[in-house]
Amino acid sequence: MSLIIGIDPGSRLTGYGIIERDGSKLRFVDAGTIRTETTEIPERLKRIFAGVDRIVKFHGPTEAAVEQVFMAQNPDSALKLGQARGAAIAALVNLDLKVAEYTARQIKQSVVGYGAADKEQVQMMVMKLLDLSIRPQADAADALAAAICHAHASGSMSKLAVLNSLGGMARGRSRYSGRRR
Amino acid sequence: MSLIIGIDPGSRLTGYGIIERDGSKLRFVDAGTIRTETTEIPERLKRIFAGVDRIVKFHGPTEAAVEQVFMAQNPDSALKLGQARGAAIAALVNLDLKVAEYTARQIKQSVVGYGAADKEQVQMMVMKLLDLSIRPQADAADALAAAICHAHASGSMSKLAVLNSLGGMARGRSRYSGRRR
Repeated sequence: MSLIIGIDPGSRLTGYGIIERDGSKLRFVDAGTIRTETTEIPERLKRIFAGVDRIVKFHGPTEAAVEQVFMAQNPDSALKLGQARGAAIAALVNLDLKVAEYTARQIKQSVVGYGAADKEQVQMMVMKLLDLSIRPQADAADALAAAICHAHASGSMSKLAVLNSLGGMARGRSRYSGRRR
Repeated sequence: MSLIIGIDPGSRLTGYGIIERDGSKLRFVDAGTIRTETTEIPERLKRIFAGVDRIVKFHGPTEAAVEQVFMAQNPDSALKLGQARGAAIAALVNLDLKVAEYTARQIKQSVVGYGAADKEQVQMMVMKLLDLSIRPQADAADALAAAICHAHASGSMSKLAVLNSLGGMARGRSRYSGRRR
């Protein structure tokens, strides 16, 4: 059983979501947004850092996932988004969390089963997978989606590790020996 | 007497410089670079955050200055620069430092006396103003330049405050009353 935090950083709103993974079962723990609608950049970054810091210290997740940004629309918004990401990720790594990054496509593929899914579909599947009766705010839903993607990815990695170790045990003459690795 | 830290954040190298301001006199305290040449973004941001955090805790500056970026060249480099800035500024504000931002033009104007000065001229003037015999590395020099700019700017602000208070005292019939405010 482990807690995973997902973060969706933004200059005005930073979404966060915490889920619990118990085997293949996922459970909703917390989600929300950190509002940073002030004019000064340093103050915004302070709120993002302090907000993420507080949430991590409160819930104590052991794994973190953030959406990877490949290409922003323009240099100005890229700089602002980058600053928000920098402050959010700094808060995670400062508390010794390992941060996994996933592309938007990987997250949609993992949550909806379709890499080009729209926001609406992602929100609906987040509600369904976590058995939520209330629709989370968009940035919180994106953060939960990143956490779900990480739960699936690290879950399959664990499965892979088991298969590899079975494969390893099965070397030589055994009922597994016909399997290609 | 106060210590000022200047930071020049970058994705690969983050420069820092500490100066002491004693009235109108400036003294060099420390300068260097935080190297972040690893492949993973979270690890880079961790080093920037931890590096700035360590330097601030060691020297205990009470003021901070960072170069303001208006327009980066392209979205990809803007995102990377933004992330580095976000982690560096988060480290400063997390330790309750107030961060002043100055444009490259303001810094050059303040240090060289010419807003379109080149890197070489800035480095030379930083050496001259701080009485350095060794030329600092480029990013460290830029960080020192930001700190010098802040020393000048906050110095003139203090002067302005004195003038304003003199002006305030001088309202009505006094030897200052002819002065326009």
